[in-house]
Amino acid sequence: MSMNRLCALTGAEFPLFAFSHCRDVVAAVSRAGGFGVLGATRFTPEQLEEELAWIDAHVDGAPYGVDVLVPEVVDPRVRELADNRSRAKAIDPSYQEFVNSVLGAHDIVPESQMPILAERMGITPENGLALMEVAFRHPIRLIANALGVAPASMITEGRKRGVPVAALVGAKEHAIRQAEAGVDIIVAQGTEAGGHCGEVSTLVLVPEVVRALEKAGHDIPVLAAGGIMTGGQMAGMMAAGAQGAWTGSVWLATPEAETSEAFREKMVAARSRDTVRSRSRTGKPARQLNTPWHGAWDAPDGPRSLPMPLMGMVSEPAFARIEREAAAGNAKARELVSYFVGQGVGLVDQVRSSRQVVQDFREEFIDAVTGLASIAGIE
Amino acid sequence: MSMNRLCALTGAEFPLFAFSHCRDVVAAVSRAGGFGVLGATRFTPEQLEEELAWIDAHVDGAPYGVDVLVPEVVDPRVRELADNRSRAKAIDPSYQEFVNSVLGAHDIVPESQMPILAERMGITPENGLALMEVAFRHPIRLIANALGVAPASMITEGRKRGVPVAALVGAKEHAIRQAEAGVDIIVAQGTEAGGHCGEVSTLVLVPEVVRALEKAGHDIPVLAAGGIMTGGQMAGMMAAGAQGAWTGSVWLATPEAETSEAFREKMVAARSRDTVRSRSRTGKPARQLNTPWHGAWDAPDGPRSLPMPLMGMVSEPAFARIEREAAAGNAKARELVSYFVGQGVGLVDQVRSSRQVVQDFREEFIDAVTGLASIAGIE
Repeated sequence: MSMNRLCALTGAEFPLFAFSHCRDVVAAVSRAGGFGVLGATRFTPEQLEEELAWIDAHVDGAPYGVDVLVPEVVDPRVRELADNRSRAKAIDPSYQEFVNSVLGAHDIVPESQMPILAERMGITPENGLALMEVAFRHPIRLIANALGVAPASMITEGRKRGVPVAALVGAKEHAIRQAEAGVDIIVAQGTEAGGHCGEVSTLVLVPEVVRALEKAGHDIPVLAAGGIMTGGQMAGMMAAGAQGAWTGSVWLATPEAETSEAFREKMVAARSRDTVRSRSRTGKPARQLNTPWHGAWDAPDGPRSLPMPLMGMVSEPAFARIEREAAAGNAKARELVSYFVGQGVGLVDQVRSSRQVVQDFREEFIDAVTGLASIAGIE
Repeated sequence: MSMNRLCALTGAEFPLFAFSHCRDVVAAVSRAGGFGVLGATRFTPEQLEEELAWIDAHVDGAPYGVDVLVPEVVDPRVRELADNRSRAKAIDPSYQEFVNSVLGAHDIVPESQMPILAERMGITPENGLALMEVAFRHPIRLIANALGVAPASMITEGRKRGVPVAALVGAKEHAIRQAEAGVDIIVAQGTEAGGHCGEVSTLVLVPEVVRALEKAGHDIPVLAAGGIMTGGQMAGMMAAGAQGAWTGSVWLATPEAETSEAFREKMVAARSRDTVRSRSRTGKPARQLNTPWHGAWDAPDGPRSLPMPLMGMVSEPAFARIEREAAAGNAKARELVSYFVGQGVGLVDQVRSSRQVVQDFREEFIDAVTGLASIAGIE
């Protein structure tokens, strides 16, 4: 496999970027010639330090990256609240009552007072920047950001250390703004992606972003994200103008992932239509496995979602409770088991090791290109 | 270009299928080595006869097809209404009042009684079957159907005459049902497509449908539809498992198309985010250029959409009026100019002839495959 410019920039042998919250996935992908990117938002700075030290010790010198979330825009309702404890107090008690009613309808006995997540970091600019500082203390080869234009300190620090900065975007205007801010790699993420996503499909967004960047004179490589679960799709998006693939959902169905057995079983059973783009978990539109939780919150008479990070402070303890109940054998609770996953879940039909997924991608990629070349009479 | 199985089945030289309501586009594409498919639903049987006779006289013997709509399911509110005049009477007058309010807000003086479309065919099973009969009297090389499983008479007649039957689907379960009914070609159409569409993106749907058909033992070629505006995207979807591309929106920006100048100008200006999937024109979810019309109907307090074909009987005279007013220079009316178009509208930056579009697709296709082969070290 000859390298392209993106590979040269990041050190990836095969331009398959794997976003995961699990260090084992990150290290396994990078060791197999792909490029693992650790999602850092779930960790405190101390925890992230520990995770990255582990990766450094297990990645055999292969390149890897870190993804942080530094939201560009903070809801005015949140801006005045300095810490998670004051934020928790600001949440109207009717939200907890609504959570209790949804859980109660699924055989989960409401606790007298549900734990409102106060010890977790939450997705805020200051938390994102604290994680970024930890990341830059490690030999990372990429730092990625989403939820708005990358902050100036990330661009400056990346330049100083020779670490390329990648930014996730869901619209061509956002790609231009990122390029103007000095970002090195654009990840064009379609609406079919798991987690926070826009409305435009990957197939349309990738060439639209590539063309808009060219037209504006920005010579920046683009990674395609959203829906990519196979090497054939990866080759396809590279035919449409991307220099590689950014993937997430496919790693959730590996034994190394942070997902529960119940969720992995639901992934294997799910069709592509079983996801929903909903504000009901983080406060921003994010694609996830559709469950009665989402139906209840998104109903016309459901409660308005809270802004980020308040919504996560309400939802995450509930989802933790759901997982515990499902693991203990509560069948109704299992109906509520959900996680951030894209429409590509419809292409998951088994649990495979991360190493195997990279190998399958490589083989499918070569098969797809060989097949196309043969049709086009190029071989 | 060596042919694949789909080309052998249809006689297409290059597997680029062009859906258009305009005979000029159909003939030009087929003459240029693609495969034109005439959308027949706007015509009476007599008009369709005339259109197909024209194509026969102008296509130079190249293969072409016809697309009809025979809805599998008819809304119970419509089933008892035998003709368009009784259907028109069944529409609550509040709908016409709402149309008048939307038009009035855009400087279109409401007529005392708006013309409710009674002379047009409307999308109903009997109308679809009448058009199918006309189509089979011509040397077509493909008949396509959407809105449910192809009727038995279409399959039988297609087999008898050696005309392959294609069916548009938006979900893998639908592909299996079509295959079981005896359809010869599946068009897997993603949510980014213009017109009636489902919720799953093309990039995910194509491999999901290909895999589901294989698993169920159906050896049927799949065309990718939705968002495809370039030969690079076409190559991409073929890398992901399709045998060719089914396209629509790209032909609306040709001078031959039935679109107005105002609409073509709006296409060139539009971004991919400027479309909306809405029931407000046909009664079923269909993607179209987003305008204040759609905002008004789809608002939480907007009227419920009517079932097909009643909704079109309300909306089509309004859109005809909007086009006339816009053409006469009414700037506010121009804001309402809309048509069925996919997210790929974001990739339209000029009006090109149909012949040129086919040529560009061919060149982009070869460039994309050559580039991929070079990356993969295959050349």
